[in-house]
Amino acid sequence: MVSEDSNQEPFPTDYDIAQSAEMEPIWELVEPWGLGLEDLQYFGEYTAKVKHHAIERLREESTEKSQNLVLVTGMTPTPKGEGKTVTTVGLGQTLNHIGKETMIAIREPSLGPVFGVKGGAAGGGKSQVLPMEDINLHFTGDIHALTAAHNLIAAMLDAKISQGNELDIDVTNVAWPRAIDMNDRALRQTVVGLGGKTGGTPREDSFLLTAASELMAVLCLASDLADLKERIGRIIVAYDEDGNAVTVDDIEATGPATMLLRDAIKPNVVQTIEGTPAFVHGGPFANIAHGTNSLIADKTAFGMGEYLVTEAGFGSDLGAEKFMNVVCRMGEMTPNAVVLVASIRALKYHGLDQWPVDYDAIDDAGVDAVEAGFSNLDKHVRNLQKFGVPVVVSINRFPEDTDEEVQAVLDHCTNELGIRAAESNVFLEGSEGGVDLAENVVDAVEESDEEAFEPLYDLEAPIDEKIRTIATEIYGADDVKFTGKALSDIEQMNDLGFDDYPVIMSKTFHSLSDDASLKGAPEGWELEISEIYPSAGAGFLVALTADALTMPGLPARPAAADMDIDADGNITGLF
Amino acid sequence: MVSEDSNQEPFPTDYDIAQSAEMEPIWELVEPWGLGLEDLQYFGEYTAKVKHHAIERLREESTEKSQNLVLVTGMTPTPKGEGKTVTTVGLGQTLNHIGKETMIAIREPSLGPVFGVKGGAAGGGKSQVLPMEDINLHFTGDIHALTAAHNLIAAMLDAKISQGNELDIDVTNVAWPRAIDMNDRALRQTVVGLGGKTGGTPREDSFLLTAASELMAVLCLASDLADLKERIGRIIVAYDEDGNAVTVDDIEATGPATMLLRDAIKPNVVQTIEGTPAFVHGGPFANIAHGTNSLIADKTAFGMGEYLVTEAGFGSDLGAEKFMNVVCRMGEMTPNAVVLVASIRALKYHGLDQWPVDYDAIDDAGVDAVEAGFSNLDKHVRNLQKFGVPVVVSINRFPEDTDEEVQAVLDHCTNELGIRAAESNVFLEGSEGGVDLAENVVDAVEESDEEAFEPLYDLEAPIDEKIRTIATEIYGADDVKFTGKALSDIEQMNDLGFDDYPVIMSKTFHSLSDDASLKGAPEGWELEISEIYPSAGAGFLVALTADALTMPGLPARPAAADMDIDADGNITGLF
Repeated sequence: MVSEDSNQEPFPTDYDIAQSAEMEPIWELVEPWGLGLEDLQYFGEYTAKVKHHAIERLREESTEKSQNLVLVTGMTPTPKGEGKTVTTVGLGQTLNHIGKETMIAIREPSLGPVFGVKGGAAGGGKSQVLPMEDINLHFTGDIHALTAAHNLIAAMLDAKISQGNELDIDVTNVAWPRAIDMNDRALRQTVVGLGGKTGGTPREDSFLLTAASELMAVLCLASDLADLKERIGRIIVAYDEDGNAVTVDDIEATGPATMLLRDAIKPNVVQTIEGTPAFVHGGPFANIAHGTNSLIADKTAFGMGEYLVTEAGFGSDLGAEKFMNVVCRMGEMTPNAVVLVASIRALKYHGLDQWPVDYDAIDDAGVDAVEAGFSNLDKHVRNLQKFGVPVVVSINRFPEDTDEEVQAVLDHCTNELGIRAAESNVFLEGSEGGVDLAENVVDAVEESDEEAFEPLYDLEAPIDEKIRTIATEIYGADDVKFTGKALSDIEQMNDLGFDDYPVIMSKTFHSLSDDASLKGAPEGWELEISEIYPSAGAGFLVALTADALTMPGLPARPAAADMDIDADGNITGLF
Repeated sequence: MVSEDSNQEPFPTDYDIAQSAEMEPIWELVEPWGLGLEDLQYFGEYTAKVKHHAIERLREESTEKSQNLVLVTGMTPTPKGEGKTVTTVGLGQTLNHIGKETMIAIREPSLGPVFGVKGGAAGGGKSQVLPMEDINLHFTGDIHALTAAHNLIAAMLDAKISQGNELDIDVTNVAWPRAIDMNDRALRQTVVGLGGKTGGTPREDSFLLTAASELMAVLCLASDLADLKERIGRIIVAYDEDGNAVTVDDIEATGPATMLLRDAIKPNVVQTIEGTPAFVHGGPFANIAHGTNSLIADKTAFGMGEYLVTEAGFGSDLGAEKFMNVVCRMGEMTPNAVVLVASIRALKYHGLDQWPVDYDAIDDAGVDAVEAGFSNLDKHVRNLQKFGVPVVVSINRFPEDTDEEVQAVLDHCTNELGIRAAESNVFLEGSEGGVDLAENVVDAVEESDEEAFEPLYDLEAPIDEKIRTIATEIYGADDVKFTGKALSDIEQMNDLGFDDYPVIMSKTFHSLSDDASLKGAPEGWELEISEIYPSAGAGFLVALTADALTMPGLPARPAAADMDIDADGNITGLF
């Protein structure tokens, strides 16, 4: 996160810091938190999965504890991200530092962004989870298991089609693409089944990122293995010639697909650089899925500490909205405080109204640009306040930020928004740099009223109204425009009995609007919805907006091109 | 392996036997074999990877030990396989039982066959490696890591093509397909890059099974991480408009692809049901790749025991030929004995000249059918003898086999072939059922003359001659017919300087010939070679025959459809 031409002493890379950190064997680390040797399934010395019996026990214990849930979200970020994971990890560490037993729960990194633009997703600096190189690469194999289970269903579906098609599946109405955990734009739209009879039945197909697979959502929302299996069986993979849904159960793939997720459903526990236990489990993106780690990890964590700090992906319009309206509703959880991560870089990005981002221009801009970007921050604050949960703004301090710039944001929050705000230096300093933030969060939590929390829409509202509520209340649209077959999709959802499902919006993360190029808080626009389809296993509907992509591409120079490993296994370029 | 209408007591399933087995923690099990706690990277309690420093140490120690290498291969099998892995595991157990310190090294199962026809590939009955459900599913993630590394290279290649194509890559001459560890015929031939400019550059593409990826071959042949990286960099992924090779180095993917294989290159150690340590590492198929586990595992095992029993895939025409001509040459190893696995079922399959296989008819046939199938067995015996290594035939006994049938095979081997033969009951009885086989193997090894071993062709021979030698000497063809662009491929290989590479034949495993329907020892036919391409990283050429497929399909009723898992995580249907 340090610009190369910074005048400061060069700060060591995340990998250097991670390598120099002294880790404790995971079984010793979690023992005081209620997990014994026999509760863990080990992956090396520093990573473990929690076995089912221990999950059960901790869940039961959690009902006796006070459970304080803190959600970390952010303003509309630059493509590099503004440090939500850093803040989540740093806040968790700092809460422990000031005497609050706190667990952390975050998502597993996807290889797509790791090799694309963002690099690693395990936090950074002195606020990261370890071992970062394992977590950022294959980790415990959960995402690979999801990819395999997804593609097993796809292969069994195509086998059904090409070998007799006794289910009368309409090859122009297949609802189950293939999946890959790699940013690969060439796989966005494909034709499969070519090469004559032995190659199957020709049809259009596509690949989505595993993070966008319904299996990922299902894994993150399932309460246990039995529930996971039931949900998988309900997933709709195609429609027959009469328009009836064909499910995973119908193609006899429920058993083997669930079997492939036998270990993936168990939450992974690791440690932060300061020895705070952290669950890293599940990895849906918030722009194309619901965007938070598994409910199983959250529920298990409630049995281990009095605070849980968790994170929702991208800006609050994406991950946080879904956390409040979908995840908390399904998981029967109440957030006690929301931390909204802002950065000087992102404020200037909005203030300069950039598209695409120009980091050099951001470096050159001053406090005027920061102030011009408040419109974006303010909209996120107002949105979050609609859920009845106290908001704390955290300014994730970068080395190149000036005191004047940071003070301008703090003043704005205090004087104009009337909310808590704190500078966070957890990247450079670990918990020493997060005390102000953590104390503000504790105050917010202690003053919070759980009764005040409420989702933004009723599940009983008509589908178009639920979408309109999110569009106007959260995104700031004037109205919603249903294009293509969106309206007939709604009719079909009603016919299928999915009218009372919550809605997961699939929208660009580059803007509050559905147009990636619009910065700040865009007004005077209509949200375009092109398609609506059910995730019957997850229990929600997905609404696709104009600019949504379920398969990212690699940039002209991917992050991967600067990664390397030497003969001794030392890695470079993985930040 | 028990037919459902057998009159015998129902024998418990492999999974039942595995579940009832008492496993020892892997660190305790391997300690007497020279691996300490700090040498291992754990995956649960019963699986570990061997760290690099321990591999180095054991390799050095191996030079001081007598190394007896026993290869297990087989006659041309039915689609269900005739028990090579069972025999390998059972023989390893039995050699320990009779006082010979013996290690086992086999390949990792691919999910493709697990969900397709064969089911699990961890041995079976009382001769299996444990924990079988982990080994058969994701295990330590090696194959997933290979899939990811393979597809990262593919994504980076397509990104180079669609974003400026500064390397001038010819989109009609891309040599790097995508990979998936799933039998999925619909992906055999595809078109990618559709959907307009953001979807990349449209072109024909295909997927191969990860077992057939050159990365799999490279992993299994590399001596260490540095060698792995060098080999990956050399892999040819495409040709430019002038016909020059474009390598993984050229597209800047060497570092990140190697990084993804950081753990995959470390061999996995597990235990057999009787507590013999076994390496399970690497998984190339012998019909589409070289077909044996990693050289790193073999070399490490040499430092741990006085015997090493390893296995080569499919019939001896495939895996064993490649082991002798390619793997032993590259790894500077000498086999001391070969065990040729035969079964009454396979002998009848050849004797009845079946295609496709009809297991009911096999059950109904008698000793005449067995004797009619000797032609196939005999050809495999004669082939193996050409390498100068003593051959022991092992009859893998199935419950439905009659004593008369088994005796007929033993008599034939002794009286007509003049070679050692033994009945093996290691499936039902473990080492108690393998003593005769093991004693024959020890005798063969003790009488073997390492000087007598020699590959079948010189590397300096012209490419077409190397192919002709394998075709005529091993497959029994009259000659070779080069079709399509095979002859121009040979010219290109010569131009590229690959003329002294060994050749990996990609051929059906259903027949000694290139026609799956021909049983026994087909005569009077010509082998058709349609294409030859270099695996420059692995260091061999691949010659495609008419009937070779690098992406299997699922049958009308895949094995997966009978697999299930219950709420407590118990698996059924995974044999």
